[in-house]
Amino acid sequence: MTQLLPGIHSPADLRALPESELPRLCEELREEIVSICGRVGGHLGASLGAVELVVALHRVFHSPQDSILFDVGHQAYAHKLLTGRRERMGTLRQAEGISPFLDPQESPHDALLAGHACTAVSAALGMLEGRRVLGRKGHVVAVVGDGALTGGLTFEGLNNAGGPRLPLVVVLNDNQMSISANVGAIPALLRTREARAFFEGLGFTYLGPVDGHELGPLMAALREARASSRPVVVHALTQKGRGFPPAEEDTQTRGHAMGPYEWRDGKLVRSRKGQRTFSEAFSAALEEAMVRDPRVVAVTPAMLEGSAMVELKARFPERVYDVGIAEQHAVTFCAGLAAAGARPVCAIYSTFLQRAYDQVIHDVCLPGLPVVFAVDRSGLVGADGATHQGTYDVSSLRAVPGLGLMAPVVGEDIPAMLATALEASGPTVIRFPRGTLPSVPPELQPQVGSVQGARWLWRAEAPHLTLVTLGPLGLSALAAAKTETGWSVLDARCVSPLDESALLKAADSGHVVVVEEGTTRGGLGSAVLELYAAHGRSPRVKLMGMPDTFVPHGDARVQRSQLGLDAEGLRRAGHELLGAKR
Amino acid sequence: MTQLLPGIHSPADLRALPESELPRLCEELREEIVSICGRVGGHLGASLGAVELVVALHRVFHSPQDSILFDVGHQAYAHKLLTGRRERMGTLRQAEGISPFLDPQESPHDALLAGHACTAVSAALGMLEGRRVLGRKGHVVAVVGDGALTGGLTFEGLNNAGGPRLPLVVVLNDNQMSISANVGAIPALLRTREARAFFEGLGFTYLGPVDGHELGPLMAALREARASSRPVVVHALTQKGRGFPPAEEDTQTRGHAMGPYEWRDGKLVRSRKGQRTFSEAFSAALEEAMVRDPRVVAVTPAMLEGSAMVELKARFPERVYDVGIAEQHAVTFCAGLAAAGARPVCAIYSTFLQRAYDQVIHDVCLPGLPVVFAVDRSGLVGADGATHQGTYDVSSLRAVPGLGLMAPVVGEDIPAMLATALEASGPTVIRFPRGTLPSVPPELQPQVGSVQGARWLWRAEAPHLTLVTLGPLGLSALAAAKTETGWSVLDARCVSPLDESALLKAADSGHVVVVEEGTTRGGLGSAVLELYAAHGRSPRVKLMGMPDTFVPHGDARVQRSQLGLDAEGLRRAGHELLGAKR
Repeated sequence: MTQLLPGIHSPADLRALPESELPRLCEELREEIVSICGRVGGHLGASLGAVELVVALHRVFHSPQDSILFDVGHQAYAHKLLTGRRERMGTLRQAEGISPFLDPQESPHDALLAGHACTAVSAALGMLEGRRVLGRKGHVVAVVGDGALTGGLTFEGLNNAGGPRLPLVVVLNDNQMSISANVGAIPALLRTREARAFFEGLGFTYLGPVDGHELGPLMAALREARASSRPVVVHALTQKGRGFPPAEEDTQTRGHAMGPYEWRDGKLVRSRKGQRTFSEAFSAALEEAMVRDPRVVAVTPAMLEGSAMVELKARFPERVYDVGIAEQHAVTFCAGLAAAGARPVCAIYSTFLQRAYDQVIHDVCLPGLPVVFAVDRSGLVGADGATHQGTYDVSSLRAVPGLGLMAPVVGEDIPAMLATALEASGPTVIRFPRGTLPSVPPELQPQVGSVQGARWLWRAEAPHLTLVTLGPLGLSALAAAKTETGWSVLDARCVSPLDESALLKAADSGHVVVVEEGTTRGGLGSAVLELYAAHGRSPRVKLMGMPDTFVPHGDARVQRSQLGLDAEGLRRAGHELLGAKR
Repeated sequence: MTQLLPGIHSPADLRALPESELPRLCEELREEIVSICGRVGGHLGASLGAVELVVALHRVFHSPQDSILFDVGHQAYAHKLLTGRRERMGTLRQAEGISPFLDPQESPHDALLAGHACTAVSAALGMLEGRRVLGRKGHVVAVVGDGALTGGLTFEGLNNAGGPRLPLVVVLNDNQMSISANVGAIPALLRTREARAFFEGLGFTYLGPVDGHELGPLMAALREARASSRPVVVHALTQKGRGFPPAEEDTQTRGHAMGPYEWRDGKLVRSRKGQRTFSEAFSAALEEAMVRDPRVVAVTPAMLEGSAMVELKARFPERVYDVGIAEQHAVTFCAGLAAAGARPVCAIYSTFLQRAYDQVIHDVCLPGLPVVFAVDRSGLVGADGATHQGTYDVSSLRAVPGLGLMAPVVGEDIPAMLATALEASGPTVIRFPRGTLPSVPPELQPQVGSVQGARWLWRAEAPHLTLVTLGPLGLSALAAAKTETGWSVLDARCVSPLDESALLKAADSGHVVVVEEGTTRGGLGSAVLELYAAHGRSPRVKLMGMPDTFVPHGDARVQRSQLGLDAEGLRRAGHELLGAKR
């Protein structure tokens, strides 16, 4: 039988198919999604669960005249396949390839750029109001997962959207999962008779629940929503990982994401060849701290897997909190825990901590509460791309009074850093990157005892140039310095407070290259410049870090090299600085 | 008859009173609140509405063994008066005086430091979990206004609190107002029969609604809540401004806040002697822009009054959006508006924009959408104190790619800046301070046409020293420079992008003082240092701005002088720099 999918280049082609062919198309979409994720990796589970939903949406609404906004974009691989990107899907999440999420620059059918959850309702309402103001027509549909209902931004949007005003269509793709099992009262409510009352209370017409894998009822509900003159919720019940047994049987995440070639002999094979990650090293240190001190508790906003805390939760079910996709709450909840005398550790990705900037400032630092922030995925994140880069944590957090900030070079540094943070009377950030742990070179003494100030990784006394680094980049600097004469490497280790005397000694070399995986606008490099200005010192200083543009998806190792953040790039930067005329 | 209030120094004294005396005590509390606000100004309306509620809470719960968390603290003047601060209440909101909100450092009865809304439920849940982990006893009560139910953080907290787990008590002080009339579906729902179903759906036992001014039923409900082993909402209906006719009759805000001596002849007299504020100047410029261009719309998160947009809303009811206390939504909603082709202007205080840092980065700047942020209350805010200082906007926002950032020196600069921002293809921040407009000195040409780069306020060619400034501090710098020989003043005007050639010319003077009302950690001063480092220039540079501590409440003019941010301070700083040895 001829494949249908190769003949579909746009939603118009989909709409031209006889309805009887749609189940076969859905089957082909599932096969294609499994095949792509098997080859290049990707967000499998949510996309498999939303196949019929995506087909039904594109049958009933006419994109791009109608705007369909997918929250996050995890669920939208079928949408990508139906909107002219099938042939390029093999480049998914790779440099220059198809975006990991959705991006209006990639396709006019992607109404919303998003990688963070919970934005779709607010953005959709804005688009609808914008069309009203400009007198333009067209429907606007926000497709949100039940996971997005644990995030406050979704509620802020629903509160403003509900009522008689505008015919916003919200499609609730309810698979009862966030990345792992969903948490809290609201997701639980959805599977009860109360769901109708809940959404009607919010001022929406409620349609459903409908079986999200039955095209007929699904399209009927969407058509009814399309015809409405007031806001509507279509509640679709779906199954994450649907149609792919290894995902269906994965009780932890229902095949949320998979790396390439993790599907073998009909099973998902999760192997990383024994290489530990920074997340795992942190989690192991945290486990030891929790064993030692009963006051220590851990909080994650829906990232038990990403922050390597699944086993920790199993061991300490009453002291590890998954609060759902709710970064603001995660931080303010930690403030309350600390105020009561507990010692909370908040594990959170750098990019998601942006969601809780005010809570860090206002709820934690202003009262000076001892919360430890384990800021994961700092710096380049690779395949997740622009929405997920950990760019701003150092620049935005080092300005907050009383907030300590440190970074390990190797995993072995982490236990001492965590112990130091847990002993502090105020808040502390420990930032570390995505990825596997580097091995410890002979020149480096991993951290023991209490962490204070900087440390020399290579030659405190070096006449020519000092590389000042933060985090694992210290190892690249070390590699660069070892082949040069008169270069030294200083691991800044603590950004707040800075080690004045070490940095003044670095200034004596006359040439200082500051290297960090984060923005150079206001980051560690700027802190060093501020310190030199305050002391009236003026060595030649060069700042190396993430550029003043959004860094797209790609291989982090390649990108690091392109940005000059590897040994070769640092060597080049050093020689440029040494050769520069004053 | 003897006054009761002078005999009450703690909640224990209150609990010792016979119940029959309580109505008289409430009357005295109201008189005292009106009298204090009349003398020194303050948040009148919410506190008047919560008098019986506060008395009932302290009769039923035993603070500080039980923790009572008041969201924001606007409603808590009676609580201050009953917890040993009556005699010092005349110092409210003044330097070294009683805090504008609540602060555990001021009283053990203040369980939560807060000035921003919506934090109480999350923090209370954290305190309750902390007590559980540590095996400590005591009840935890979160007192939240209905305004806090438009903020997503409250929902994140409710989602995590609801269910069988812990006996959190949430008291909903429902006065149907935020600062002005509340917005959206949820506050409206509260006054219907659906309120019970709504909270029960969230996993809470619902008690109420009770008349929040009837002590008997109020205390009965609180006692029932106290006895519960599961989470409870007590829904109290209150009247903002209760018992003070000028507030009751103020239809806009029910006497939300008053300045000193605004109550005359039984009326609230709102006069500022004709002096316009920066907010008003911005609003006037916005009104003109809205008249000229039908695509321009305005968005405020519950700050119609503070952002001087009440009249704008009256003139353009369909193009001015008050979205409630929902900063995240305000920004993402603007992203949607801009994506649809409208030109949204988001008026938001610097301190509240911290709530939407991720939305600025991820929803607006990453897709490069043309949203204009009117960042009000940047810099020192005076009586509102540490929770409200506008400290971090420049340092956190200048790092975001593609986000323009400028600041007017005088109100007359604003129309050209707004026009420039509205013509831009990407996002722009315009930051301005709280307070009245300065007059335009003869040396200053207010902005006309398109805004680019910096401008010299005084002598482009000056051999000795350049004061580089941002915003109205340029006027202090001008005053300082005019009495000195060989000093110049450069108004940075645009922080992003910086004017390289003007700053390099400033470097020629050899001495550069950078002055800003914001943190010096990563702010404009750091941007100038980064630029000089990139160009291999090394003038002596001194950074002046807000310190690396939280600045408390006080008179902003006095604080500015203490921080050296007035003409005298800048003169001193310049001479220090000139005299410093290399």
